[in-house]
Amino acid sequence: MNTDLQDYSHKRLNILTGEWVLVSPHRAKRPWQGQNEVVSNEKRPSYDESCYLCAGNTRINGEINPNYQDVFVFTNDFAALQSDSKTFLVEDGLMVAQSETGICKVICFSPDHSKSLADMKPAEIQKVVFAWQREFKELAQNPNINYVQIFENKGAVMGCSNPHPHGQIWSQSTLPNEVDKKNTHQLNYFNKNNSSLLGDYLTQELEKNERIIFQNNDFVVLVPFWAIWPFEAMIVPKKVQPDILTMSDNEALNFAEAIAVLTKAYDKLFNTSFPYSSGIHQAPTNGQANNHWHWHMSFYPPLLRSASVKKFMVGYEMFGSPQRDITAETAVKMLRELI
Amino acid sequence: MNTDLQDYSHKRLNILTGEWVLVSPHRAKRPWQGQNEVVSNEKRPSYDESCYLCAGNTRINGEINPNYQDVFVFTNDFAALQSDSKTFLVEDGLMVAQSETGICKVICFSPDHSKSLADMKPAEIQKVVFAWQREFKELAQNPNINYVQIFENKGAVMGCSNPHPHGQIWSQSTLPNEVDKKNTHQLNYFNKNNSSLLGDYLTQELEKNERIIFQNNDFVVLVPFWAIWPFEAMIVPKKVQPDILTMSDNEALNFAEAIAVLTKAYDKLFNTSFPYSSGIHQAPTNGQANNHWHWHMSFYPPLLRSASVKKFMVGYEMFGSPQRDITAETAVKMLRELI
Ligand SMILES: O=P(O)(O)O[C@H]1O[C@H](CO)[C@@H](O)[C@H](O)[C@H]1O
Ligand SMILES: O=P(O)(O)O[C@H]1O[C@H](CO)[C@@H](O)[C@H](O)[C@H]1O
Repeated sequence: MNTDLQDYSHKRLNILTGEWVLVSPHRAKRPWQGQNEVVSNEKRPSYDESCYLCAGNTRINGEINPNYQDVFVFTNDFAALQSDSKTFLVEDGLMVAQSETGICKVICFSPDHSKSLADMKPAEIQKVVFAWQREFKELAQNPNINYVQIFENKGAVMGCSNPHPHGQIWSQSTLPNEVDKKNTHQLNYFNKNNSSLLGDYLTQELEKNERIIFQNNDFVVLVPFWAIWPFEAMIVPKKVQPDILTMSDNEALNFAEAIAVLTKAYDKLFNTSFPYSSGIHQAPTNGQANNHWHWHMSFYPPLLRSASVKKFMVGYEMFGSPQRDITAETAVKMLRELI
Repeated sequence: MNTDLQDYSHKRLNILTGEWVLVSPHRAKRPWQGQNEVVSNEKRPSYDESCYLCAGNTRINGEINPNYQDVFVFTNDFAALQSDSKTFLVEDGLMVAQSETGICKVICFSPDHSKSLADMKPAEIQKVVFAWQREFKELAQNPNINYVQIFENKGAVMGCSNPHPHGQIWSQSTLPNEVDKKNTHQLNYFNKNNSSLLGDYLTQELEKNERIIFQNNDFVVLVPFWAIWPFEAMIVPKKVQPDILTMSDNEALNFAEAIAVLTKAYDKLFNTSFPYSSGIHQAPTNGQANNHWHWHMSFYPPLLRSASVKKFMVGYEMFGSPQRDITAETAVKMLRELI
């Protein structure tokens, strides 16, 4: 381990996006007089009659949720993408726009309003993984859909508008910015080396064993070298797979175990239901082989020092580059102790 | 005006960064059950003895602030960038890092603890502009500094740790991500057209007059076509200038007026001291002419519908692209009425 990286301000390259993160290891002890987040450790009931995601309840558009037993998927009542929209292209001098159509879905992870993924068993999470596979497969067959973004916003501080355990799937006709960057960098590497960028990176991480949180037969949970968020982590399949479709049932269970282990460690870290946005980046559903793609799931949690003090990605971060104080190596040590 | 852009989901291109924003005009009426921000409309005193930025007070490192009358600049006591750091390059397979040195400063806009830029007269803000020019000039002469990022985080919701009116300047040896993108896109356009990308865009905006909030002899305040944040705005000099150094005293006063007009309109919008991060993007200080650069100041305010409901850039936005509900054209109409 290069100790300069623990002592001096430096930047690290995200090999998947080509962008840099500024790391300031010496700054972790800066006092905090800013905003404190409201922390609610209140235990929620298993059923909430005012929740529009609980089984049997009526949603805003009048539809009634079925009496679901594990996972329940429906089309978002306030979708950001319309499927029946017009197709158009605007190229008016330097004003450039184009229509973007798509389908947005909501996926309830459990009928139990009080739970989160961190409270669920791997076998229960496996059912969520199966639902992701089913939805991905169906959306991939739609000729107007070329990319499927699976994600979860957990916690009020992450803009989650309902604490019922749920995630979302936004699918669309073109590649969003972040996916486009990863597509390009993986493709360039694959064309040059005829191997997977993330696969080769994973091999290097496993050899070094400095940033690994957990692993089982099929998956590795690690803090990437270029992590932005204080306790950012990534779940990577050991086998190179372009998307989640090729996973066997047993791999799906091991993926579920990786999610369970990571989210449980997060909850222990500051003794709170740990907020985050998580998302799966995978190959476009454009009908091509996409052999350069190696899918992975990332967790971006905002908390920095306690349940109430988060990292703000503002000012310098918005105009310059993301910036972090605690290093990836320090974060991984703290998380590893909680497994 | 293309009405499709007000009716259907689409994406718009940011010509300066090459990235897209997803616009969902039909979604503005979605109900909000999520987090409400704490709004403090409490009037602060002009002097606060516990504030480490007020005149005459002692800072954490023991230094005593002078009895300053208008603007006061000092080196950040918890700088994210170190000036005396080692220089190193790490290229260990797919782990790539390099040292980043720099100088971070804090700039108090006024000794009056109760004020913000929105409460200050153009002649007072002009003194802030002069301080930005002085600091930029001095830092530009430092051979280890190749870029100077001037910015402000306003409001607790934007991670501002002290309500005393102040901004920051982080300067460093390499170009941060966002600046690098704008550098590339402006350079490509300049090489092809021998004119300023932002200058040509400004000409088009002035002709259309659809997204202009305010203008005076030297500056235009507008909502860019590709705005991400609900009430994002940009101040652009009419004359093509690579950086803030070439501004005359009178131009500085007109720039100050533009800042005053915009920040006052912001405060009126939701009847609250409007939070934002603002920043000036300008040419690198690498000793070159940088004729392709056209400096500008952007404001990224998080509020969406009221003083307590903000837009969260989470989930889809982190993994995909930024997304907005209200269009740039609707936002500009609301702001223009408040001038
Ligand atoms: O420097 P401050 O005001 O203490 O801190 C604030 O601004 C910095 C620069 O944008 C950010 O890195 C911090 O996350 C934010 O809390
Ligand atoms: O769809 P929700 O949960 O109502 O809304 C949340 O997630 C969306 C997708 O990341 C964001 O666009 C919203 O800003 C956020 O509040």
